[in-house]
Amino acid sequence: MSGRANRVWTGGSAILARVGDPRPVGVFDSGVGGLTVLHELRRQLPGERLLYLADLEWFPYGPRPLRDVRHRALDIITHFAELDTKLVVIACNSATAAALNTARERFDIPIVGVIAPGAQAAVEATGNGRIAVISTEATLHSGEYVHAIKEANPGCAVLGRAAPELVSIVEAGDADTIRADGALAPLLDELFAWGADTLVLGCTHYPLLLPSLLRLIGGRSMAVVDSAATTAARVQRIVAVNRLQRDGEDVPPQLAVTAAPRRFLDSARRIFGEELAAPEVVRIGDCGLLAVAP
Amino acid sequence: MSGRANRVWTGGSAILARVGDPRPVGVFDSGVGGLTVLHELRRQLPGERLLYLADLEWFPYGPRPLRDVRHRALDIITHFAELDTKLVVIACNSATAAALNTARERFDIPIVGVIAPGAQAAVEATGNGRIAVISTEATLHSGEYVHAIKEANPGCAVLGRAAPELVSIVEAGDADTIRADGALAPLLDELFAWGADTLVLGCTHYPLLLPSLLRLIGGRSMAVVDSAATTAARVQRIVAVNRLQRDGEDVPPQLAVTAAPRRFLDSARRIFGEELAAPEVVRIGDCGLLAVAP
Repeated sequence: MSGRANRVWTGGSAILARVGDPRPVGVFDSGVGGLTVLHELRRQLPGERLLYLADLEWFPYGPRPLRDVRHRALDIITHFAELDTKLVVIACNSATAAALNTARERFDIPIVGVIAPGAQAAVEATGNGRIAVISTEATLHSGEYVHAIKEANPGCAVLGRAAPELVSIVEAGDADTIRADGALAPLLDELFAWGADTLVLGCTHYPLLLPSLLRLIGGRSMAVVDSAATTAARVQRIVAVNRLQRDGEDVPPQLAVTAAPRRFLDSARRIFGEELAAPEVVRIGDCGLLAVAP
Repeated sequence: MSGRANRVWTGGSAILARVGDPRPVGVFDSGVGGLTVLHELRRQLPGERLLYLADLEWFPYGPRPLRDVRHRALDIITHFAELDTKLVVIACNSATAAALNTARERFDIPIVGVIAPGAQAAVEATGNGRIAVISTEATLHSGEYVHAIKEANPGCAVLGRAAPELVSIVEAGDADTIRADGALAPLLDELFAWGADTLVLGCTHYPLLLPSLLRLIGGRSMAVVDSAATTAARVQRIVAVNRLQRDGEDVPPQLAVTAAPRRFLDSARRIFGEELAAPEVVRIGDCGLLAVAP
């Protein structure tokens, strides 16, 4: 199978030439959470051009109705299509839950979400088949983690819990504090009482809570999984199977936001300890893309 | 992971004893089409007790609204749960499209559909990534084949077409006749014009059309896949991973219908050339199961 810009000339059955596909991969989230996925993509697909869009104008997606998030995500994918991306990663659980299936019906571009990879990681990690998922309300209400985990192994049992306050805690820079411990402790006790041996971090913000989680789990046994690494591995496989590799030298990702470029840089620095280049500010809407001066 | 009736006693880390899980596997379809899946299950899981229910009172599912088919399928799975089945196979594409996700939210029993296995078979068969799916209207409108194929490889393109008259043709015993050729020829021409190199038979009745299909494809190149074999392979893997094997001698499947036992036997004989034991007649409804004398 070949991608649109990935020409393969054949003479008889011998491939005479094959060129790489230079088009970029588009990645988006409502904020900085998807940077966990961007990091893994850079690590596992070093030769690819990556565009990252943080939709801070609409942040956070989690408490919004699924229909609104779906509409917004389709607008963003339209934006990426206009930029001639060869693949789009929805690096946000809420947007994946709301929009992945509809987007795959509407766009020819390969689109990858973070829920099925997270489900796969959980099914591989569990010993007793009891998997807990913490997420935003939008993701919980979609049921998509239950569907994806049971597709990977229908013998597993799933307990979903919404923990919307955790996004605010992470965004405030309180991920490794007594405030985080206070929100997580009763939640973890409930998951252990139910018998979970595996916990899926069903929101791209939650990996920042790992120090607090590990402290609270203490001597108890719980596998904690997120979807950043497995999503990047899936993208890597899809790029390879569909012969979409770029085969070029490493280039830094291009960053964009829909609002608040300063807040994006501050959050990225506070949360990831990373100094990023100033993002471009773009406008997303029903009329397509309007680029605004950075 | 262990199933409910599959006890594993451990002393320290050594497994002292392990017994098989004698509970049956429930399989259902609106009619005889699901017998294609039952055959593969018997072949690939010879030690399992299989219950097959043909819901002839509601046949055919394909033209009904998805909501009605979902409601009915949930009633049938409730019936199987009351019979203490260890796993349920929805051996019908329309019912899988309508009910699989909801059923997995509501029931603890592992439930397997036929769409994801069919999608997997198609993705493995295609060379150019252009996959056509023919199905009932219910299956087409659900979009579930697009979702499942793009989950298996989002680089594939999917063309779906509803062909509701094909079920009537097969049920009338006209699968290998000029009547079938007349319905299939323009459909195939359209799929070839679109560039499909793979055709998914998205209805359990359609494998009976294979002689006509192969005749019409002629010298052209098209992989034709159905989900019977891949569904049985998936059930086999799920049973193994979750340690649900029965480990007993081979027993014939138990058959049941919700109406028209004579029509069921006639169809099975006419379509599969098979003489089956008289099916039990059961009643399915909102009030649960009412067994009726056969």
